[in-house]
Amino acid sequence: MPELYDVAAIGNAIVDVIAPSSDGFLDDEGLTKGSMMLIDEVRAEQLYARMAAGIEASGGSAANTVAGVASLGGRSAYIGKVAQDGLGKVFAHDIGAIGVNYATAPLQTGAATARCLINVTPDGQRTMCTFLGASVHLTPDDVDPQVVESAKIIYLEGYLFDPPQARRAFAKAAGLARASGRLIALSLSDAFVVERHRGALLGFIDSEVDVLLANEAELLSLFETDDFGAAAKALRGRARLAAVTRGAQGSVVIAGDEIIAVDAVRVEKVVDTTGAGDQYAAGFLLGLANGRPLPICGRLGSIAAAEVISHYGPRPQTSLKDLALKAGL
Amino acid sequence: MPELYDVAAIGNAIVDVIAPSSDGFLDDEGLTKGSMMLIDEVRAEQLYARMAAGIEASGGSAANTVAGVASLGGRSAYIGKVAQDGLGKVFAHDIGAIGVNYATAPLQTGAATARCLINVTPDGQRTMCTFLGASVHLTPDDVDPQVVESAKIIYLEGYLFDPPQARRAFAKAAGLARASGRLIALSLSDAFVVERHRGALLGFIDSEVDVLLANEAELLSLFETDDFGAAAKALRGRARLAAVTRGAQGSVVIAGDEIIAVDAVRVEKVVDTTGAGDQYAAGFLLGLANGRPLPICGRLGSIAAAEVISHYGPRPQTSLKDLALKAGL
Repeated sequence: MPELYDVAAIGNAIVDVIAPSSDGFLDDEGLTKGSMMLIDEVRAEQLYARMAAGIEASGGSAANTVAGVASLGGRSAYIGKVAQDGLGKVFAHDIGAIGVNYATAPLQTGAATARCLINVTPDGQRTMCTFLGASVHLTPDDVDPQVVESAKIIYLEGYLFDPPQARRAFAKAAGLARASGRLIALSLSDAFVVERHRGALLGFIDSEVDVLLANEAELLSLFETDDFGAAAKALRGRARLAAVTRGAQGSVVIAGDEIIAVDAVRVEKVVDTTGAGDQYAAGFLLGLANGRPLPICGRLGSIAAAEVISHYGPRPQTSLKDLALKAGL
Repeated sequence: MPELYDVAAIGNAIVDVIAPSSDGFLDDEGLTKGSMMLIDEVRAEQLYARMAAGIEASGGSAANTVAGVASLGGRSAYIGKVAQDGLGKVFAHDIGAIGVNYATAPLQTGAATARCLINVTPDGQRTMCTFLGASVHLTPDDVDPQVVESAKIIYLEGYLFDPPQARRAFAKAAGLARASGRLIALSLSDAFVVERHRGALLGFIDSEVDVLLANEAELLSLFETDDFGAAAKALRGRARLAAVTRGAQGSVVIAGDEIIAVDAVRVEKVVDTTGAGDQYAAGFLLGLANGRPLPICGRLGSIAAAEVISHYGPRPQTSLKDLALKAGL
């Protein structure tokens, strides 16, 4: 199978509703700052009614990542399920318009396109409540072998461990990728996701994962520790390669015994951290797909993350390729 | 009737789809930069398919203005028609969440909520294509006399001259406002709108309008001249008070023989000028409703406009009241 894509991703296809919020609002609504919580449609209506005015933008963690790959000039594909409604059309338009190959058939009847209600506090942190809607109807049949087998890297999001059918789609993709000798990358997605599915995630990492993407909180949750050094050490025996983001402190790339610290790219004002990890993954994975040295992969991740946290919305609003060229990469 | 609102507005209720674009794209699509063009649903689908990935945000010129009034701490109300669909819910949520009284019944069947496809070129200028959808079904019955009679200023957008029924709603509102001794403010909206409806607009200005809001191009179009001085002079005999925006050159307030120049508030980078005129109107009209001196009204307009051009989207993303307080107003 020829290599058509640098990165192909599978994830929950979601449209974000992003609004400014106060810390008090998070408390009143019982939300844990910086986390992702699953909610049902009734709760989604309730919470939306209380949220501030916002903007709507295509999201979904792995979808954001492949959009970032495309913005960096890479070739990418996406598999994820929307409904045949207005937001579903927006999702399909946006991911196609940025240059990602996206051909998953929309759900014909039933659930609406998934929405993630995101409250952004004045410090730029985002707190997410997701109504999974149509995205849980992603099935193994939606995983196109031609897409998986023709990508240098298959990127899977940990969020897919929540919907049972999606997990089977995830397993099918991993099997196809393994059989075709492709790299398998996994994002841990969220500390609570890790808590809910720790055993399954560890098993999957041991057996299938070549590249692990995580933030610090997720990594600590995975190994049930407060000590970053201990978590990094525990990881070394399990994943061949890992990149762990640490917010303003940058990121750490762990490759066997080698640990590489990567600086964050400073931004004037952090407006909204939604999509920061996803864009870091975009830069890192595209660098990897192109055989760039690991410190450069990390730097590409930092540049992509810096762009997305300087505005509302989880995807780049300017060409990441231009930013990378400007930075001499 | 007690004064419940500083500003009540009537307009086309629209959700914006905002995406970056090149000048070449505008040429290819036959679009005149900086203008608003009406399109039908078929053309809207076509154009959307070719546009870049973007964001969705509640818009509509007069709706943006009353949202700005609310963000400045003023009391405002809005009358405009959406459909009972996803984007209609977004519109109603956003305008309510920012604190605007909005109670127009949505259209039950037929057209979808109006959409404005906005292409933003690298210089920050926006070029708009509007599919009016449900908004043209605004009828005189939708004009609640209690809202109009209890507002210090009734604000009408020139865009309402396009849909015939809306024009009758417009006339009803003007009659009610006149009878209750309220101020009537009109926005010229767009140079092509002025061209399409010059006679009707001039008649309405002569007979009903207390405060005219326009940008330079619209004013020049109204009097069919290239000479700003001549246009300003022509205006003096017709509108008691006018505020004319001139982009980076600021604005000019014309009150009889008095002409007041108001500086623009500089922004680091002009990202997207969508909503600049609407937010200027918000600051200017709220100042006026509160009896502030005209130079202060203009300054409030400049502050509000500066906020909105520094990000994608036609409405403030930070509290305009805080910005005005910070500026000592």
